[in-house]
Amino acid sequence: MVNLQLFAPVGGYNMNVLENCFFGFAKRSILVNVSNIPDVDLVNLAAALQDSYYANPRLHHISSAFMPSRDEIYAITNKLFSVLFPGFFGRQDLSHHNIAQHVQTELEGLSRHLYRQILQCFNCRKSRKNNNLELRAQTVTQLFLESLPRIREVLFCDILAAYKGDPAAGDTDEIIFSYPATIAIGTYRLAHQLRKLSVPLMPRIMTEHAHSLTGIDIHPGSMIGKGFFIDHGTGVVIGETAIIGDNCKLYQGVTLGALSFPHDESGQIIRNYKRHPTLEDEVIVYSNASILGNVTIGKGATIGGSVFLTQSVPPGCMVTAKQAELRYRNRCDTLSRGLISDYQI
Amino acid sequence: MVNLQLFAPVGGYNMNVLENCFFGFAKRSILVNVSNIPDVDLVNLAAALQDSYYANPRLHHISSAFMPSRDEIYAITNKLFSVLFPGFFGRQDLSHHNIAQHVQTELEGLSRHLYRQILQCFNCRKSRKNNNLELRAQTVTQLFLESLPRIREVLFCDILAAYKGDPAAGDTDEIIFSYPATIAIGTYRLAHQLRKLSVPLMPRIMTEHAHSLTGIDIHPGSMIGKGFFIDHGTGVVIGETAIIGDNCKLYQGVTLGALSFPHDESGQIIRNYKRHPTLEDEVIVYSNASILGNVTIGKGATIGGSVFLTQSVPPGCMVTAKQAELRYRNRCDTLSRGLISDYQI
Amino acid sequence: MVNLQLFAPVGGYNMNVLENCFFGFAKRSILVNVSNIPDVDLVNLAAALQDSYYANPRLHHISSAFMPSRDEIYAITNKLFSVLFPGFFGRQDLSHHNIAQHVQTELEGLSRHLYRQILQCFNCRKSRKNNNLELRAQTVTQLFLESLPRIREVLFCDILAAYKGDPAAGDTDEIIFSYPATIAIGTYRLAHQLRKLSVPLMPRIMTEHAHSLTGIDIHPGSMIGKGFFIDHGTGVVIGETAIIGDNCKLYQGVTLGALSFPHDESGQIIRNYKRHPTLEDEVIVYSNASILGNVTIGKGATIGGSVFLTQSVPPGCMVTAKQAELRYRNRCDTLSRGLISDYQI
Repeated sequence: MVNLQLFAPVGGYNMNVLENCFFGFAKRSILVNVSNIPDVDLVNLAAALQDSYYANPRLHHISSAFMPSRDEIYAITNKLFSVLFPGFFGRQDLSHHNIAQHVQTELEGLSRHLYRQILQCFNCRKSRKNNNLELRAQTVTQLFLESLPRIREVLFCDILAAYKGDPAAGDTDEIIFSYPATIAIGTYRLAHQLRKLSVPLMPRIMTEHAHSLTGIDIHPGSMIGKGFFIDHGTGVVIGETAIIGDNCKLYQGVTLGALSFPHDESGQIIRNYKRHPTLEDEVIVYSNASILGNVTIGKGATIGGSVFLTQSVPPGCMVTAKQAELRYRNRCDTLSRGLISDYQI
Repeated sequence: MVNLQLFAPVGGYNMNVLENCFFGFAKRSILVNVSNIPDVDLVNLAAALQDSYYANPRLHHISSAFMPSRDEIYAITNKLFSVLFPGFFGRQDLSHHNIAQHVQTELEGLSRHLYRQILQCFNCRKSRKNNNLELRAQTVTQLFLESLPRIREVLFCDILAAYKGDPAAGDTDEIIFSYPATIAIGTYRLAHQLRKLSVPLMPRIMTEHAHSLTGIDIHPGSMIGKGFFIDHGTGVVIGETAIIGDNCKLYQGVTLGALSFPHDESGQIIRNYKRHPTLEDEVIVYSNASILGNVTIGKGATIGGSVFLTQSVPPGCMVTAKQAELRYRNRCDTLSRGLISDYQI
Repeated sequence: MVNLQLFAPVGGYNMNVLENCFFGFAKRSILVNVSNIPDVDLVNLAAALQDSYYANPRLHHISSAFMPSRDEIYAITNKLFSVLFPGFFGRQDLSHHNIAQHVQTELEGLSRHLYRQILQCFNCRKSRKNNNLELRAQTVTQLFLESLPRIREVLFCDILAAYKGDPAAGDTDEIIFSYPATIAIGTYRLAHQLRKLSVPLMPRIMTEHAHSLTGIDIHPGSMIGKGFFIDHGTGVVIGETAIIGDNCKLYQGVTLGALSFPHDESGQIIRNYKRHPTLEDEVIVYSNASILGNVTIGKGATIGGSVFLTQSVPPGCMVTAKQAELRYRNRCDTLSRGLISDYQI
């Protein structure tokens, strides 16, 4: 039963909700003082939940090493974007006079937060030895931050590719500000670098956050060359062992997936083998095409919309599907009489 | 016209925007002091908007019962996840010493906020009698909270199914932290429970929030057994009257939808009849397959990628589509001369 | 190297993370006091990043005109929704007594923020002359705000269309509160108006934010009549030059796209020509259908699920695809012996 003493007796209630949080995110601290408190039996509920926690240790982390924080990792990703694209994101009044101090300050914050979360990710994987995890986290933080200028170079190629490949793009500012490809590919490039440095958990948390924001699901383990563009992007899936060369372009709904998962003798799924496609340089895959299995699409090949492909394709080849025969039925008469139901196979 | 007195006369402006909010959410309180205020005619605009409000009562809630708050409902969902997965989300320094107090405190907050929003949802549906809505909201709050340990048990099966079914999953921590299936299926299970308790509005607000975050659209009215996994997930649609047995698995882009909507004699669409598929236990549906109408997919059946199905399938059956004939055109000559346009049907 | 003096020496650390931010958005100000600071070489890193900035001026805005703020534009969109749907979003205690004051206050805030961001968008496009940009921004702000009552009328038709077209919709409140179509179509109608007023950047930032939240990608340049509904919506793409008449309905995964992009003699992609479909009034397009190129779908036509269409369709016509032949393989015997791998083409 709730202790009524905890709440000031208010006749009515006060919704202290900020007004402009229509979209997406819940305001964190919402205060509701209610005069009617439900008389629910919280003591027994709390006991039942605790029993539930201890029954399934996989679903809780009580008294274990502290976990990485998903929210901290999101904040780090945001901060990394403000360092990658100064003036676009984060502080806006940058000048030649204050840029040096600004970058220094940003990097100090980033290095602290990155170090802490990388350390927590190492701590969290119990199979690792605990020797020197702090030194290891420190080294990884340094190496990762050192890679940022190179990541910027690659992203520059990606953004130019978007501009060259999309007639609806007004300029590169528009691409940096608003294109889902900027979020998805930029986050992938950061996460892939962390994965190369053997950081567990964090890379996938980052790319799944980008997946949530864009509908583009790029596994951090995939390897993707420069000049990469994904237009529209919703529904794109790029699997863990996919390889994509330079200057490739994908459209919405494209799957670079696996065919089937073999199991070992004990029935366990087998992990860590090449099961996704390889796209050589300058491949274009149009919307909703699926390419499945460890096949190779040769340099300069084009895969048409809605193609379903499980075989390799030679360089320069264009593959289109003989589209399904369409049936046309004229309904003008029935329409005019309002009798038609709106869809029949 | 804007009252200039409201703003300190500042020569220039100060964008007080926090720096790390690149992704998604707008910071709520952004202060911009501008020296140039547009001289727009706000009085007439305000009058025109008020006229517009009173013209369409369906689009406003002025002087009606207070409405549920979408932001409060999002916050409640977040809090429920921190109770379902302690240590992963929310407070991180949990131990055997403080867990009891922590759970008690969380439940107190949850019960207050749930009660208030459930009551507002009941208030909002005008067709309901106003008798005893407060008692009803209290009872529903109690019953819902009592169901949390059982929901955790089912979610445990779901997370194990994800681990067993995805070779890219490193461990169950990764699944809880980053997989969209955790958000989409977890939110569905909470929302479905509220719908069983006849709470209006809130279940759909919850699942559509998960849809926004994951691209997975599960109607809270659907019925889904334990051990359910959705890999990648973007574009999945599971309709209101779909039924899914235990240990089923879906991939991205799968639709369990309806065929066509019959209308009654007055032309109104008919609601509340079984119009979506039933999947028996251990059914797998691969990416971008569509199963439409009130058909039954038998136990252990597998539906291949991109299959379009409007008929029932017997148990154990594997259904694949004879994929469209592909046409290959070699363009190496034209490619080398740079003459090719990039896509032709 | 990080200056340790900046941090109070704390034995351990304090994760000051609010507990209820499970979903999506990173809390902005997260304080972590750590006892172990990585000894990374920040001075050289900062210098390398600055070199990188000056190497690619397209990726930064240092010492250029101040940029529009994506977060401000998101906040403006939120505020516009609270003005379009009072009582649903934003302040909840509205009555006939306070509505006039409320609207006036909201419009004052909106006009200031809109003016500032519109001005920044004009400033950002360098090709424009700087003459009278402030007067121009003021005029555009006024004209845009004056269009809000008309936009509400159109949105009312859209929401009624959703109610009439979806048997799962309980009432119009549910549609306003939870349907992705409300966010996507509402944001499109606002952004389209800004684009008609020749505001750069902002329209696309708004629609791509809605795309992020809903999976529905509507280019602000497309022209869409009243009574428009998109059910489920994930994966829908409506291109820049698409035209959609009154009372049309789309389902998830529908693409109204372009066929191929012609290039001019210098190899540059040609922009600004009609390359997307026109849908006349009362057209329905079922899930995952693609309509590509500058074709016309006649009044009252229905396009079936998964149809791939690159030709015009006469009025009243129903187009369905002869679905791929399905192959059924009975696996009951192997299933019972547990020998089957789970997917084979």
